[in-house]
Amino acid sequence: MTQEEAIQAGLELVNHSQTAMLSTIGDEGYPHIRAMLKKETEGLKTFWFSTNASSSKVPQIQKNPEACVYFVDGEQCTGLMLVGEIDVLQDMASKRRLWYEGDEKYYPLGVNDPDYCVLCFRAKSGKFYRSLQNVAFDLEDEG
Amino acid sequence: MTQEEAIQAGLELVNHSQTAMLSTIGDEGYPHIRAMLKKETEGLKTFWFSTNASSSKVPQIQKNPEACVYFVDGEQCTGLMLVGEIDVLQDMASKRRLWYEGDEKYYPLGVNDPDYCVLCFRAKSGKFYRSLQNVAFDLEDEG
Repeated sequence: MTQEEAIQAGLELVNHSQTAMLSTIGDEGYPHIRAMLKKETEGLKTFWFSTNASSSKVPQIQKNPEACVYFVDGEQCTGLMLVGEIDVLQDMASKRRLWYEGDEKYYPLGVNDPDYCVLCFRAKSGKFYRSLQNVAFDLEDEG
Repeated sequence: MTQEEAIQAGLELVNHSQTAMLSTIGDEGYPHIRAMLKKETEGLKTFWFSTNASSSKVPQIQKNPEACVYFVDGEQCTGLMLVGEIDVLQDMASKRRLWYEGDEKYYPLGVNDPDYCVLCFRAKSGKFYRSLQNVAFDLEDEG
């Protein structure tokens, strides 16, 4: 599997996934994982999620932006690990852009809910896993 | 959901899961996630996995044992995050105990394969997620 094939297969995995795992670094330096609904994506480089501003991941990210986003398909034995930085965005343009129908379930006051915010993850490198193979690739020169 | 209910639901999720996500801390401080086959478990406190000694997670763990193990069931909207320390075990008793039929696929030389080793994760705290609820609990006083 070449790097190009790994990136292409990674893109297909992202496109077919409804959720991603996000790991941030918690207070005492321990990694914390949780599943996130996939929202907007741009290639393998940029991923936007929405979350409750009151959730524990927000102060973790504000203290340490180092993060990992992981997609997995157990049936296909494929996985995509992306490593990079994540930011908390609270500007109205980002919040409007990420607002989906039904999000009132999570943020009852709508797009202006002070408990609604956006996360933007930017990958700097990745690794694609298929069965017993894996291929690492750099993403810093990508658009 | 009480802490007892969260721990009980977490145990059920572990019992029904074939894989777990493991996050370790990589070289530059970034978290790294990958899926692992669940092998032996003891309540919510101790989890054993096997891996290739040559995999990138082994030097990461040897440098920094802080780790997170996460189980998820997308259909049930449940997740279990466990935070604690993980060790690399290379003694024969641990290697024999974790050896499963078919593991030759990963370690062609069998239980004595120098590329075969065991990981033991011990949780100190956890959080169980169901839909929009989550309950944190401590595991350090557990047996």
